[in-house]
Amino acid sequence: MSPTTETLTAERILEATEEVLRRHGPAKATVVDVARALGVSHGSVYRHFRTKAALREAVTKRWLDRTSEALAGIAADEGRDPETRLRDWLRALFEAKRRKAGHDPELFATYSVLVGESGTVVEEHLAELTAQLTGIVEAGVAAGSLAAADPAATAGALFHATGRFHDPCYAGEWKRPEIEGELEAVLDLMLRGLRAPVR
Amino acid sequence: MSPTTETLTAERILEATEEVLRRHGPAKATVVDVARALGVSHGSVYRHFRTKAALREAVTKRWLDRTSEALAGIAADEGRDPETRLRDWLRALFEAKRRKAGHDPELFATYSVLVGESGTVVEEHLAELTAQLTGIVEAGVAAGSLAAADPAATAGALFHATGRFHDPCYAGEWKRPEIEGELEAVLDLMLRGLRAPVR
Repeated sequence: MSPTTETLTAERILEATEEVLRRHGPAKATVVDVARALGVSHGSVYRHFRTKAALREAVTKRWLDRTSEALAGIAADEGRDPETRLRDWLRALFEAKRRKAGHDPELFATYSVLVGESGTVVEEHLAELTAQLTGIVEAGVAAGSLAAADPAATAGALFHATGRFHDPCYAGEWKRPEIEGELEAVLDLMLRGLRAPVR
Repeated sequence: MSPTTETLTAERILEATEEVLRRHGPAKATVVDVARALGVSHGSVYRHFRTKAALREAVTKRWLDRTSEALAGIAADEGRDPETRLRDWLRALFEAKRRKAGHDPELFATYSVLVGESGTVVEEHLAELTAQLTGIVEAGVAAGSLAAADPAATAGALFHATGRFHDPCYAGEWKRPEIEGELEAVLDLMLRGLRAPVR
């Protein structure tokens, strides 16, 4: 089946865009490159994404969504107590970022550039992640196992305090063997602060 | 008094180097520029600093020492209880970095480049800061007000968890009005985790 006989979906365009970005880098990748990779005219691409900026935003959102969707399962898993869920969620965020950075460094660097461009997409992503964390803290407060006067503020603090373990500016640190112990030390300290006093 | 009649001290060379770095940027600044600014031969500069790399390391160390010396006073201040000292120390670190970044952004950017070059100098600086924090945690454990099985590991966790408020890669965030509240939320969470249970 030649590429042109398949239906041109937004998802196919985004897959091709990611591949073009990986190959050419964020500075050089163009809509014409994407169209060529798909064997279609650039007009066909523009019917799905009205501007190059819209296409870049959409591919960035897709990349970020992969992380938040993977984490949503942990946030919603009522089989684990809230403290375990918090710890597992923050570890999984670190693992996801480290895997992306280590597995395909060019693509990771490319997306780090794109993330710097797309203000709204990144804000929405951070809001989604913080909302997941807030949900876990609220579940812990409801169950009486965690103490937090303002679960959203606490979620923000948890997210900010673990920046070293998910922010791309620390990607260079993630290969150091000590890094996992450093994450555990931060988690231990924060979770001690969150645990409700035993009555 | 003309520049050449003053004794050429290491400190005068470092002052001139900082000024040359501010003016030319880290990529272009040379030892010849420094010598010219002082009205001496470059041989005179090399008598104090044997290589350009040694001069750059020394000026970076001087820049970093300004921060650690200011903080040492808080770490050693037994007039404040250890929890207050921890909080004040971490706030002062943030304020010092924010002031440097906001007051003279070119020089801050220059030093961020130099810090990336000087492995040992930066490691020693981080070790010095963590040692100060460890001392405060130990004082709290000795007084019975803080609980920490391993004060050095706890100090590391405190330092890592506050990276958002002292690491230059976050300098862009430090102008946001929310940033102070974000620091307080992280400090509240961590200090709750450190407080010894009331017996």
